[in-house]
Amino acid sequence: MLGSTLAHLAVKYGAKVRIIDAMLPLYGGNLFNLEPIAREIEFIEGDIRDALKMKEAVKGVDYVFDLAAQVSYVHSNRDPLLDLDINCRGHLIVLEACRQFNPETKVVFSSSRFVYGLTQYNPVDEDHPTNCISIYGIHKLNVEKYFKFYSEAFNLDTTCVRIANPYGPRQQMKHNAYGIVNWFIRLAMDGQPLTIYGDGKQIRDYVFAEDTAKGILAVALSPATRGKVYNLGSGIGTPFREMVMNVAECVPHTEIHEVPWPKDRYFVETGDFVSDITRIQDATGWVPEVNLRAGIEKTVAFYCEHKRQYWEPSQFALRR
Amino acid sequence: MLGSTLAHLAVKYGAKVRIIDAMLPLYGGNLFNLEPIAREIEFIEGDIRDALKMKEAVKGVDYVFDLAAQVSYVHSNRDPLLDLDINCRGHLIVLEACRQFNPETKVVFSSSRFVYGLTQYNPVDEDHPTNCISIYGIHKLNVEKYFKFYSEAFNLDTTCVRIANPYGPRQQMKHNAYGIVNWFIRLAMDGQPLTIYGDGKQIRDYVFAEDTAKGILAVALSPATRGKVYNLGSGIGTPFREMVMNVAECVPHTEIHEVPWPKDRYFVETGDFVSDITRIQDATGWVPEVNLRAGIEKTVAFYCEHKRQYWEPSQFALRR
Repeated sequence: MLGSTLAHLAVKYGAKVRIIDAMLPLYGGNLFNLEPIAREIEFIEGDIRDALKMKEAVKGVDYVFDLAAQVSYVHSNRDPLLDLDINCRGHLIVLEACRQFNPETKVVFSSSRFVYGLTQYNPVDEDHPTNCISIYGIHKLNVEKYFKFYSEAFNLDTTCVRIANPYGPRQQMKHNAYGIVNWFIRLAMDGQPLTIYGDGKQIRDYVFAEDTAKGILAVALSPATRGKVYNLGSGIGTPFREMVMNVAECVPHTEIHEVPWPKDRYFVETGDFVSDITRIQDATGWVPEVNLRAGIEKTVAFYCEHKRQYWEPSQFALRR
Repeated sequence: MLGSTLAHLAVKYGAKVRIIDAMLPLYGGNLFNLEPIAREIEFIEGDIRDALKMKEAVKGVDYVFDLAAQVSYVHSNRDPLLDLDINCRGHLIVLEACRQFNPETKVVFSSSRFVYGLTQYNPVDEDHPTNCISIYGIHKLNVEKYFKFYSEAFNLDTTCVRIANPYGPRQQMKHNAYGIVNWFIRLAMDGQPLTIYGDGKQIRDYVFAEDTAKGILAVALSPATRGKVYNLGSGIGTPFREMVMNVAECVPHTEIHEVPWPKDRYFVETGDFVSDITRIQDATGWVPEVNLRAGIEKTVAFYCEHKRQYWEPSQFALRR
């Protein structure tokens, strides 16, 4: 979702764009996402864990957006070694490729709010403690430290963004392991009820994909961001229940179920979370433009038009 | 050095001991270290990256001491992917083996003062910021976070110690990539001069191997240490120059050279470092017993007796 959204923006702004995606079956890669710009971009099928491909990928470019990931914290805790392989080793290979074959490039890493773990205060600024409570969060933090190290030790121009809860058009819709807003949109469109755990008052910071991509671009284009890390969210706290209501209102006839928290989900409940986005705004001037209701409307409209590119009508949801 | 020292202690205290070592050529494994207790221990040649061997290794034991490592920060920065493989993936495999095959065991991880990076104050307590400035330090911190996560998520009894500058009998003496006190003892015994960079006033916390092993044992045996992390040092700050003088005085006819700091070494100079060992002392009652002069004398005496087990007279020092 973020990669293709960024590519659309970059093409619109006149950039030459090269995209690398491993096209792993359960991940977000979907060539339909690139169809409108297919003739204007270069596409390489390749995995960040493939050093030779990364050498080819980073050569000659001014900016590298390292957005590849295993993106489910649930899966990370079930298979920490796979998460390590993709979410640490892969990025180290990208950094090594840049250091060796394109040391003048700028490299942006998409980290996550999960580095913060249990929130101690809100809004959460970049100096909040990083007591990660998932392998996913631990590895994101580890890679942030690689990026800082490569900046200091090898003078590579690196920067990181800690993305809140992104949603929007072009996310994969095959399973529910990440991206709750999109998954709820799919459920609603399939006529399934939406489930709220507990009182649904937990606060999240939902940020629209296009806003997120613009934030990533802004951080890349600003020389002031070198060696630093930035929150990237809407800056607005929304109760989970309110997000669900918005989805239900945008997809007619959607039912909402309220049930107690299951035990195993509770562990990854990080407490309320809102990004403090002062630092990125001060550094780049970027501001989020699409509010949650408008973003959900745009997302629903996108999937109504292109649903069959993202899921089979008959497909059962994969369970976590 | 630490593994075999710990094994000697544990055998002395009546424990049944199983030792696993990969016996990699440039690492610390040396069967001579175990000769005096060879008939009382079980030895398995195996690598922490080998999941099947780790399954075999952790089965049925009450305590797992995960001391395996690539131990050179210099090498970690030159080959970050190898460091990742041993110093992250290996430990994750150990934790997975414990979680799956011996969830009742206690697992102790040997972390390092390098997690702190540039020191902001001294003595350094466990809440000091962890702004690592080497891949080695980044990976040690990453594994500490694994240990905390496995404690919280899977109820595994884990704990970590951040070891200062250990030295003493049984360390490898083949190259200078880690363990400066031991390396200087070798140089002095070979009739080579000892080099002091800059004014030699940088403060370090040198901790004797046997004291370190006793501290590791104390942390393992205390139920209060579960899920926590502890500094493990002497608690005493010694100027580098003073350490060098002590070596020179213990090995007659040793010359000392003073030269400016080379540029590439400066990067890993972390500033003065002294461990605050209040927390481990409060939790376990452990205290370091061997002062630097006595420790160097014991170390010199050990290598005078067993030199040929640790280096060839004619062997050239491997360069970093």
